[in-house]
Amino acid sequence: MSDVVTFGETMVRLTPPHFQRLEQTASLDVHVGGTELNTAVALARLGVSVSWVSRLVRNPLGRMIANKAREHNVDVSQVLWTDEGRVGLYFLEEGASPRPSQVVYDRRDSAFSRVRPDQLDWQRLLAGARLFHTTGITPAVSACCREATRAALETAHRLGVTVSFDMNYRSRLWSLEAARECFLEMLPLVDILYASAGALETFCGIRGTPEEAAARAKERYGLQAIALTTRDEPSVLRNRISSIVLADRLYRDRVHDLEIVDRLGAGDAYSAGIIYGYLQGNWEKGVAYAGAMAALKHTMVGDLPWFTVEEIEREIAACGSGLLR
Amino acid sequence: MSDVVTFGETMVRLTPPHFQRLEQTASLDVHVGGTELNTAVALARLGVSVSWVSRLVRNPLGRMIANKAREHNVDVSQVLWTDEGRVGLYFLEEGASPRPSQVVYDRRDSAFSRVRPDQLDWQRLLAGARLFHTTGITPAVSACCREATRAALETAHRLGVTVSFDMNYRSRLWSLEAARECFLEMLPLVDILYASAGALETFCGIRGTPEEAAARAKERYGLQAIALTTRDEPSVLRNRISSIVLADRLYRDRVHDLEIVDRLGAGDAYSAGIIYGYLQGNWEKGVAYAGAMAALKHTMVGDLPWFTVEEIEREIAACGSGLLR
Amino acid sequence: MSDVVTFGETMVRLTPPHFQRLEQTASLDVHVGGTELNTAVALARLGVSVSWVSRLVRNPLGRMIANKAREHNVDVSQVLWTDEGRVGLYFLEEGASPRPSQVVYDRRDSAFSRVRPDQLDWQRLLAGARLFHTTGITPAVSACCREATRAALETAHRLGVTVSFDMNYRSRLWSLEAARECFLEMLPLVDILYASAGALETFCGIRGTPEEAAARAKERYGLQAIALTTRDEPSVLRNRISSIVLADRLYRDRVHDLEIVDRLGAGDAYSAGIIYGYLQGNWEKGVAYAGAMAALKHTMVGDLPWFTVEEIEREIAACGSGLLR
Amino acid sequence: MSDVVTFGETMVRLTPPHFQRLEQTASLDVHVGGTELNTAVALARLGVSVSWVSRLVRNPLGRMIANKAREHNVDVSQVLWTDEGRVGLYFLEEGASPRPSQVVYDRRDSAFSRVRPDQLDWQRLLAGARLFHTTGITPAVSACCREATRAALETAHRLGVTVSFDMNYRSRLWSLEAARECFLEMLPLVDILYASAGALETFCGIRGTPEEAAARAKERYGLQAIALTTRDEPSVLRNRISSIVLADRLYRDRVHDLEIVDRLGAGDAYSAGIIYGYLQGNWEKGVAYAGAMAALKHTMVGDLPWFTVEEIEREIAACGSGLLR
Amino acid sequence: MSDVVTFGETMVRLTPPHFQRLEQTASLDVHVGGTELNTAVALARLGVSVSWVSRLVRNPLGRMIANKAREHNVDVSQVLWTDEGRVGLYFLEEGASPRPSQVVYDRRDSAFSRVRPDQLDWQRLLAGARLFHTTGITPAVSACCREATRAALETAHRLGVTVSFDMNYRSRLWSLEAARECFLEMLPLVDILYASAGALETFCGIRGTPEEAAARAKERYGLQAIALTTRDEPSVLRNRISSIVLADRLYRDRVHDLEIVDRLGAGDAYSAGIIYGYLQGNWEKGVAYAGAMAALKHTMVGDLPWFTVEEIEREIAACGSGLLR
Amino acid sequence: MSDVVTFGETMVRLTPPHFQRLEQTASLDVHVGGTELNTAVALARLGVSVSWVSRLVRNPLGRMIANKAREHNVDVSQVLWTDEGRVGLYFLEEGASPRPSQVVYDRRDSAFSRVRPDQLDWQRLLAGARLFHTTGITPAVSACCREATRAALETAHRLGVTVSFDMNYRSRLWSLEAARECFLEMLPLVDILYASAGALETFCGIRGTPEEAAARAKERYGLQAIALTTRDEPSVLRNRISSIVLADRLYRDRVHDLEIVDRLGAGDAYSAGIIYGYLQGNWEKGVAYAGAMAALKHTMVGDLPWFTVEEIEREIAACGSGLLR
Repeated sequence: MSDVVTFGETMVRLTPPHFQRLEQTASLDVHVGGTELNTAVALARLGVSVSWVSRLVRNPLGRMIANKAREHNVDVSQVLWTDEGRVGLYFLEEGASPRPSQVVYDRRDSAFSRVRPDQLDWQRLLAGARLFHTTGITPAVSACCREATRAALETAHRLGVTVSFDMNYRSRLWSLEAARECFLEMLPLVDILYASAGALETFCGIRGTPEEAAARAKERYGLQAIALTTRDEPSVLRNRISSIVLADRLYRDRVHDLEIVDRLGAGDAYSAGIIYGYLQGNWEKGVAYAGAMAALKHTMVGDLPWFTVEEIEREIAACGSGLLR
Repeated sequence: MSDVVTFGETMVRLTPPHFQRLEQTASLDVHVGGTELNTAVALARLGVSVSWVSRLVRNPLGRMIANKAREHNVDVSQVLWTDEGRVGLYFLEEGASPRPSQVVYDRRDSAFSRVRPDQLDWQRLLAGARLFHTTGITPAVSACCREATRAALETAHRLGVTVSFDMNYRSRLWSLEAARECFLEMLPLVDILYASAGALETFCGIRGTPEEAAARAKERYGLQAIALTTRDEPSVLRNRISSIVLADRLYRDRVHDLEIVDRLGAGDAYSAGIIYGYLQGNWEKGVAYAGAMAALKHTMVGDLPWFTVEEIEREIAACGSGLLR
Repeated sequence: MSDVVTFGETMVRLTPPHFQRLEQTASLDVHVGGTELNTAVALARLGVSVSWVSRLVRNPLGRMIANKAREHNVDVSQVLWTDEGRVGLYFLEEGASPRPSQVVYDRRDSAFSRVRPDQLDWQRLLAGARLFHTTGITPAVSACCREATRAALETAHRLGVTVSFDMNYRSRLWSLEAARECFLEMLPLVDILYASAGALETFCGIRGTPEEAAARAKERYGLQAIALTTRDEPSVLRNRISSIVLADRLYRDRVHDLEIVDRLGAGDAYSAGIIYGYLQGNWEKGVAYAGAMAALKHTMVGDLPWFTVEEIEREIAACGSGLLR
Repeated sequence: MSDVVTFGETMVRLTPPHFQRLEQTASLDVHVGGTELNTAVALARLGVSVSWVSRLVRNPLGRMIANKAREHNVDVSQVLWTDEGRVGLYFLEEGASPRPSQVVYDRRDSAFSRVRPDQLDWQRLLAGARLFHTTGITPAVSACCREATRAALETAHRLGVTVSFDMNYRSRLWSLEAARECFLEMLPLVDILYASAGALETFCGIRGTPEEAAARAKERYGLQAIALTTRDEPSVLRNRISSIVLADRLYRDRVHDLEIVDRLGAGDAYSAGIIYGYLQGNWEKGVAYAGAMAALKHTMVGDLPWFTVEEIEREIAACGSGLLR
Repeated sequence: MSDVVTFGETMVRLTPPHFQRLEQTASLDVHVGGTELNTAVALARLGVSVSWVSRLVRNPLGRMIANKAREHNVDVSQVLWTDEGRVGLYFLEEGASPRPSQVVYDRRDSAFSRVRPDQLDWQRLLAGARLFHTTGITPAVSACCREATRAALETAHRLGVTVSFDMNYRSRLWSLEAARECFLEMLPLVDILYASAGALETFCGIRGTPEEAAARAKERYGLQAIALTTRDEPSVLRNRISSIVLADRLYRDRVHDLEIVDRLGAGDAYSAGIIYGYLQGNWEKGVAYAGAMAALKHTMVGDLPWFTVEEIEREIAACGSGLLR
Repeated sequence: MSDVVTFGETMVRLTPPHFQRLEQTASLDVHVGGTELNTAVALARLGVSVSWVSRLVRNPLGRMIANKAREHNVDVSQVLWTDEGRVGLYFLEEGASPRPSQVVYDRRDSAFSRVRPDQLDWQRLLAGARLFHTTGITPAVSACCREATRAALETAHRLGVTVSFDMNYRSRLWSLEAARECFLEMLPLVDILYASAGALETFCGIRGTPEEAAARAKERYGLQAIALTTRDEPSVLRNRISSIVLADRLYRDRVHDLEIVDRLGAGDAYSAGIIYGYLQGNWEKGVAYAGAMAALKHTMVGDLPWFTVEEIEREIAACGSGLLR
């Protein structure tokens, strides 16, 4: 079994080349992306044994998704296959100031959205794993997915498998209320949480400076670690990111200046860095890796990261002093 | 109002370039195609005033479809727009012997499939038209579409608008039984019918040589004209097509030898040729146009035809004796 | 008839991909562009009924231009078609600091340049229109075009059709003297004028702050409105634009920070925004739309804009306070 | 361990698009290919558990090769990685009659060519395997490779692992004499042999009709099965292939008419079909699969096959009577 | 000075990729082509010293043409450069049966068409040359070009420089009458003539079998050699070519079966083969080279050939018996 | 003979399009580049007669390199051709902050690296030349290359041919120690030196402000001129460059702000500017040209520059005051 198990949907992503509008394009670049698989790939590229649990259609698009996961050495042997339904798609338009990048989803009624909770035997799927990772998108996909996510978290919790959860919110998938209810139910099962200050306020009613908010959330939900990331967007193509992590103590990552090639998947690469640190028992390394991996991902095309350990370490080294304390 | 009114679904078509498999491709060529719009475009390129009635989503893909129709001078002012649902897609893999070209549909739950019959006021939509054209695909899309198609045919029949109907069958959309029941209900309302000998046998139980079958169908359903097309496929990339048309008398088109660039839409271009002849009161011209247009379409990329009247006439002239009698 | 009538030349534009030099390229991206059509398309995308009057060759390039206009719902039924002459072309090289973008024209002896003034019955073409729009490029194309432009302006003036005129100057088409003579002749017929401070000084001898210059020009030529745009170019790929409009009162648009994908057509989108405001009787809305449309156009590939009303309003809203007063 | 173990070099293949000459091209399509990996991929696509043993450079090109193998579910955990040396390349020019397709190799001093025989513990690598497959290219790469290949065959033979060997000859890698000496040494260790009639004559001195030659070779070398393939080349882009297999009895595949998209890897797909039949204990199925797989591979871009079991069976079924007896 | 001097126009050629129609394309492939430069390039690739005399605009397109000539080692030091006028263009649409490939010219008023005969000092340009080559296209371009061509031929004749002339006719450039008058005036100055049987009949009134026509033309105009090429076109993409040459004796080239990638420039490559044979004093070699070069050119993209001497000889050898006698 | 003779290796460069990682790409853009050829091309574009001495393989890649040199009017008649060995390659990944651009070399055992010093008769190659240019890369390629470089410098020195030398260091080709020993041996033979302040310190032990370091180096090695360039890298895609040149007096180029399209070859374009000034006896012009050429090169795709004299002068003029004194 893999050390890390991830769970979520992956879609085929279609992007008009070179800033074209979707309405005008004569061709589309093809990638695959899904937040949990993105994290799994980032981990696999670091040498972590990781599997991705999902549901795919037995057609060329479904096979393409499994192929790309395997290409990066993610174990897909636990993926459920079906002849019914469709593969979710999304269309990405790349922006430039003042036009933001935009996503048009076409994921309704995907095979994943119709996964039946009883198809997933989490007891078996999580046996031997050290960590389970999913995000706020997975329960948002459908009622079945919400139920399956809850079952996964509960089983992991019961088995002592560390639960890593990115509390991101997709307003096109569900309402704030539905998300809040679900998140509040899940948070007590979570060990490592990724959130923005805004999300903590919106969903948990936690206010204050980032440090204060992190401390409150950590205590309230009994977290091992909480990572708060911030993004400053002077323009669509130039951003600055940073983060704080509160675990055994407070870690503060330096600011990364970015020339953005493709920002999708950057947060997922960040999570992978934290998980990597956790697995190595070294939060400090995790924070440095997370920041460098998120920064590097912005320079790579597609949702999936293509970095190597050497590149991550070079990027950390290039920044001189590393973490700010 | 337009002289010709067409009704049906148009999808966005995504094709891996240069014979690549869908599973392997890193990009997709984007076209739009739908059998009735294909016919409408072919007519518009001949200078016929033609409109296309359908239902589209108010998003970039929906706008793309309307744009392409307008680009070719097809009137889309009667298209229904909705914020709900999705635009149907299909993926086309181009084959070479012995691998046939293949289509993967992703059209379930499209905006068109959910058109409500009462949204279409055929009395108004057909007022002033000379001819209404649709195909066997439209009623196959959904129960609503079947109902809307029947309403259109009945209204056209009542108003004295000529009904042109391509009895093509898509096995992935409905069963033979459902198709047969629907077609038999509709045939008495049809004036111009396009069918293969096989379809006449399967759906109408009509057997015999093509000439005999055409004669029986014409008589049984009170058709003005019936066109039977034949295709000989020595290889995936080399085909030969021909047709007979039984109207005021029997017309026999010569054989067209084809080097296939893209065969989709060829039958739709054929129908446009017959309709063109009908509108001009000249079946002979219609048959010659239909054959040349179908042949030329095979050499053009995408479902929509890009020929001119001059090219069609050059192709007819190039063949020497023209029609065989 | 359309509410807005535009008049001018559209060319096929050929651009080497990704910053390549024309001399080195092995392929060219194909677009169409012409300042008045660009404005017409921007208006059509806002739902305004608009037609474009021009002259095209009956060949694939001429048809391509008409197709693209129709694709965006611009009425091309009044275009004159000819079998003679050629379609004007231009080659665009995209620059990056310190190399500016460059245009190589190949438009000499185009079909448009040879339009005979008597081929255009402005009385008929403008009947029922609310506004006529053209630019300083049209009279510069040839003596015939200058004559035809003057006839258009005079007829519009006589019929009470509002005249909208962008006084842009192309030094490769005519001399400063010829342009000045022409512009001074035309200005008394103009109702809405777009100009830079430099153009007001060069052609009209009007100096002063932008506000003063606008006031003097408005008074001297009896304008309903005058729009002065400014562009600050810290680099080739990063610009800042703003404008003032003097109509019933002075409007001042905020500064737009731009990451430039393709700057061609931005001024034309600006004009469309002002015209839109005029048609709605709301100069304030016009100024906000004009600025947002010009800004958004910089992020889109090709001369023609691909925005929607929703995007424009989102961009206006995103800027917080909107107009500066 | 995998059921099938393969051994050989895989290179990065660079192809000018659309029939361009290498000397003229401004871009190159990137694929990976190597005859044993091609066979492994074909087997993996049929669901066979298969591993590929080789040696790769720890750089982006080396990783790309391993990625592509994993993408198709080939086990690469036994690949040796090195920081030294280079990844072999080859350039492929696609021809059309009368210009044949041409390959320019740049594989000298590749990491694979420098594999040290003692780096490969065949006892361990072959433990539990049912079949070992390699080709005449592997021993041709270098003296080390020849030694390693011999060690593999001897170990397989000793362990009772079936040895499958494609006796193809690359004149650019070694002389006829060197190849003959090597092949004659290896043949007694081989169980399943693929050869052309010409190769049997050149290397083994075996003459006669294909059936006679097969019978003699089978007897002389104690083969379980021998497959003789024939190719008829009426033009560069149209070929016909067929084969006979002599195992428990003589099997004769029908003739496959091909429109060639990319002929590389077709022979490797053939071998996979035979191996598949062997593993299932069904030579007849193997011959039918081999022929269909070779035929289908010709229609797919790249050296690696992208077919499915369903497509292979559809192709076999489409041919009516199937095998000729 | 070069051994061979050629004279004519070269244009930039723009081709929609993959069989697209010009009207529909979003990009154009860029090549350069002109019949005399095509021949010059073919000669240069054989190692012949050759120069090309022409007139180009000092802009990126003009430089591109000179660059491409130099790339193939054709001397362009005698090209006249001007700041006026334009570079001729042509658009090529690639066909497939039954749609023939089509050319849309946009070459009117090119810099070459306005060359002034007194700008070309043929006495100097031809000094030291062994052969001068041009075609029937050059005098067709304009009256100036016709005059310049005549001056070139007369000077070559006077200096004893062999005159090689391809009597091809472009109906879009001039009338049959104008061409006939010009050709009849020039033929007495010609030493090596390339023509079709049809052209001999149309322009010279010479009828009969190819052998008879060749003999009559050779005698009537005092030719050293006359080459008659024939083309059989079973389809747009499959042709068969052959030729006879009457020089010291009659040579008959075998039939070449072609899968056509790009047929432009094939006749020009043929001429180069004959010239090569002439320069080596070996008509037999010339005929074999001419046929092989023409055949190979059909498989190469662009007007310019990219073959090597080795490839030509391999093609000649591959055909077994070589020339038919 | 050419006025300027250059000596060094040129490789084929392969670049994944649009920021893709090499590991992920499905295609590669093809360019050629080599520091001395880059300089030669820059000079040729200014109208300087220049030749490039090197060694190439007689295969499509070798011909491609010679073609591209000739395309830009660089004399390649002194290139040595061989049937042995390979053409050096390098793979370039384009970066964006914080990921720097990266090069993967595959140049080991190239034909150039095996040039035998006795194959190059520098006495003959340099006869009549005014200047010889090479760089620190050439002696780094191999021991043979080092010997050949030394022979070239000694011969140039003896013949009174000015020696221009760019002391750039490639750590992947040799050690600091080897480079230092070689450079110190060569510097007394150099007349014009290009170096960074860092290189002066590392290899010559010269410290101080740039002005001081330049003065010391100039004196110590008896240089005619020394150019020190500086680069400030606020981000991967935005740089600022400047330089000082100490010749008859001190020249200081202004700062150039760059939006980087492709930074390779910029230093080589700089050298060409200095050489151009030297040849014209005008250091001031040389410094201005060098800075403008280096700046413009950053905006052009590929290693080779595609500017014109007019563009360089426009860029110099655009900067207002020009050189800072």
